[in-house]
Amino acid sequence: MASETENKKVVLVIGAGDATGGAIARRFAREGYVACVTRRSADKLQPLVDAIRADGGEAHGFGSDARKEEDVAELVETIERDIGPIEAFVFNIGANVPCSILEETARKYFKIWEMACFSGFLTSQAVAKRMVTRGRGTILFTGATAGLRGAAGFAAFAGAKHGIRALAQSMARELGPRNIHVAHVVVDGAIDTEFIRESFPERYALKDHDGILAPEHIAENYWYLHSQPRDAWTFELDLRPWMEKW
Amino acid sequence: MASETENKKVVLVIGAGDATGGAIARRFAREGYVACVTRRSADKLQPLVDAIRADGGEAHGFGSDARKEEDVAELVETIERDIGPIEAFVFNIGANVPCSILEETARKYFKIWEMACFSGFLTSQAVAKRMVTRGRGTILFTGATAGLRGAAGFAAFAGAKHGIRALAQSMARELGPRNIHVAHVVVDGAIDTEFIRESFPERYALKDHDGILAPEHIAENYWYLHSQPRDAWTFELDLRPWMEKW
Amino acid sequence: MASETENKKVVLVIGAGDATGGAIARRFAREGYVACVTRRSADKLQPLVDAIRADGGEAHGFGSDARKEEDVAELVETIERDIGPIEAFVFNIGANVPCSILEETARKYFKIWEMACFSGFLTSQAVAKRMVTRGRGTILFTGATAGLRGAAGFAAFAGAKHGIRALAQSMARELGPRNIHVAHVVVDGAIDTEFIRESFPERYALKDHDGILAPEHIAENYWYLHSQPRDAWTFELDLRPWMEKW
Amino acid sequence: MASETENKKVVLVIGAGDATGGAIARRFAREGYVACVTRRSADKLQPLVDAIRADGGEAHGFGSDARKEEDVAELVETIERDIGPIEAFVFNIGANVPCSILEETARKYFKIWEMACFSGFLTSQAVAKRMVTRGRGTILFTGATAGLRGAAGFAAFAGAKHGIRALAQSMARELGPRNIHVAHVVVDGAIDTEFIRESFPERYALKDHDGILAPEHIAENYWYLHSQPRDAWTFELDLRPWMEKW
Repeated sequence: MASETENKKVVLVIGAGDATGGAIARRFAREGYVACVTRRSADKLQPLVDAIRADGGEAHGFGSDARKEEDVAELVETIERDIGPIEAFVFNIGANVPCSILEETARKYFKIWEMACFSGFLTSQAVAKRMVTRGRGTILFTGATAGLRGAAGFAAFAGAKHGIRALAQSMARELGPRNIHVAHVVVDGAIDTEFIRESFPERYALKDHDGILAPEHIAENYWYLHSQPRDAWTFELDLRPWMEKW
Repeated sequence: MASETENKKVVLVIGAGDATGGAIARRFAREGYVACVTRRSADKLQPLVDAIRADGGEAHGFGSDARKEEDVAELVETIERDIGPIEAFVFNIGANVPCSILEETARKYFKIWEMACFSGFLTSQAVAKRMVTRGRGTILFTGATAGLRGAAGFAAFAGAKHGIRALAQSMARELGPRNIHVAHVVVDGAIDTEFIRESFPERYALKDHDGILAPEHIAENYWYLHSQPRDAWTFELDLRPWMEKW
Repeated sequence: MASETENKKVVLVIGAGDATGGAIARRFAREGYVACVTRRSADKLQPLVDAIRADGGEAHGFGSDARKEEDVAELVETIERDIGPIEAFVFNIGANVPCSILEETARKYFKIWEMACFSGFLTSQAVAKRMVTRGRGTILFTGATAGLRGAAGFAAFAGAKHGIRALAQSMARELGPRNIHVAHVVVDGAIDTEFIRESFPERYALKDHDGILAPEHIAENYWYLHSQPRDAWTFELDLRPWMEKW
Repeated sequence: MASETENKKVVLVIGAGDATGGAIARRFAREGYVACVTRRSADKLQPLVDAIRADGGEAHGFGSDARKEEDVAELVETIERDIGPIEAFVFNIGANVPCSILEETARKYFKIWEMACFSGFLTSQAVAKRMVTRGRGTILFTGATAGLRGAAGFAAFAGAKHGIRALAQSMARELGPRNIHVAHVVVDGAIDTEFIRESFPERYALKDHDGILAPEHIAENYWYLHSQPRDAWTFELDLRPWMEKW
């Protein structure tokens, strides 16, 4: 098997169920990367896998729970053994569920952290361990403005996103000198997704004026970060629509 | 019982096992506050309780696991019912255990967060729910430089401390307008503790030059924050020795 | 003259024409400091000087242009020679004049910087040179939220306040190890002044609910910072009314 | 003349005397932009202008003092009238001259600000006024880590760079909704220049390990920022070599 995997380069996208994760996978696939995409249930990934294949790319969908250490270990082992080395890794799980601090349940506070932060630690670490043996790789995290400051009603989400940013920054400082490029993308604004279209129609209407982020345009930045030569690496960049208040 | 508790004001210090938590409890007790202090095993709190009582203050030690929702609920219920209203709350649990991101275990990453962040959510929320019914109160968090930026070897600790800061900021913005003063103290430097004396003797030697933080001086700032009139509240202040590099 | 000045401790407040500067001068005077207060024209300082004297304090008003190097040199020389060593220094000149970036004149952009930043450099440096020879002193700057981030219509003011913060941080890092305590106070909100009362009456009406900052309460923080023992110095704290949106 | 200028797109690089500014000009010229480059004396720009022309591009060098309002007005007027609309603007003047705060002269503190901040205001504003009439344009500022925090010995440089960042952020927030993309690039590390080669040979030796920034790689990011679609604009990104400590 080894011989077949030798020339392949894998991008692993954790949380490819949403528009952004899917767009990132497609962007890397266009460059010849094998797109390995995950979410909790694999069957929902089929349309994305099919789309990449229809474009002439290679893609594999994995049902994998990023919050479970054994799932993560198996996922990474399977990919590295059967498909190829993970050259680029993207953690893209969000959990933006606002709630008053007075009404937040302990269970939900924990779940949001487990989903949006702990799984980021588990997956990025498992991949980093492989990358350091090869002395190269890119690790990218999808962040949010909530990772920079808290806000009323956002204690849980801000806590998870702050945790991801702390993880990214700690990894960047430790692994940069080992030739691993770690970066954090701060997405500030509504993204063109079904969720926004259905839940925030007025916001969605801004699409006609480029007022919400196109997943493809977000994805372009992940590819760009991965492409940067190592004498000039970016750790953090923000993305927002031109008309966004901030 | 109600009549007896009416005129009492309680300061609750979660994590009073270390020098800082103890000093904060003593500082508030000197002002007439009943000091309710917790750590996982109550017996280790006895010296602190005795010291406060010897100074003429009132103190109660509670063995209580701040990571357990039921423990926290019972703790707050007991204090509010039997002792008095919690007017000031201090979350002071740390967990500064450095480790390479490549060697950190999932269990330890989780434990550090559970201890230094999740328990902060559980306890501060339980108290905040009481405070809003009275329309007043102070909630103080012990933070660290690791809450502002990550560093090599500090992914877990920085993650927890970032989470606490996000919690504090989210609470401050939501509860400030309800007359709850929420603040975050960034301690940057070694504190005069047994741990530093034994593990970092060279660092500890700086004590002769005021090069490490005295717990009593840290505690003064908690009292100061609690005393601020509400037209001029501080959300965040940092503390470091004059000779500290930063 | 030397013998008479030996036991005197001076606080020098640059920009004592407004309510905040005046309150700071009074606060230090109450503790026995000789208050040396400045603004461009000395005569307008007389009410402040009289008020401090009426309270049993010592005060001296100086007409001095903080933007002029020679004025500053003479001011500091006069105080140190004739009155006493400057133990505490406060830079309190603001210049919050909003304007669209498209309409801002070069002259005004320069004037705002000269008044709110350059004069801070000139005065704090002149005093710092004296303090380092004695190996002690406190240097305090009045900052603003505009010192932390820019905003539409605030390029000039934000530029000056960012400059002051950069100055404060650079001084703190260089002079802290020389036993000079440098700190920066971020005032975020309207202050109880004639200007706010006349120009923003609706805002001023919040005073009845403690919704605007009392100069005396701001001043308390300057005294507090000056009083901190050197093993636990604060570089930065923010101040805002409980009901302020942020 | 108007007809000839209609289809031309100009990039104006203020401070094209150093390697970075030159590389940015070349990068835009490769995409068909007319490169208008400035520094105080035009003759030193000739090699850059020649190099762009040799590559088949169009370039014009201007001796222009960016600190002088009239020079700036004339420069912008000349370009817009005789060459074409300024579609992209780059402010790239630095002034990294460290000095102890105790020894910094007022003249140098002022000069550093005038050169690295005031000229940024003058030039970007003059160009912004043109861009808003067309309803499009990109304004890019070269920043530094000193724009984010002060450091011992860097009061003047940090002050200027903080001012530029405040300007950039204020402009971005005001002009974003007018379809002007304003961004700030934080360069953190030594750049491959004659200055570094001659003054810091040990640092320069890191070039063999990609340890210093290549001007061409920095320039790529300016082009990238200019190319971003407006639903996903970046305000700020940082750049540093993989092995840089931060």
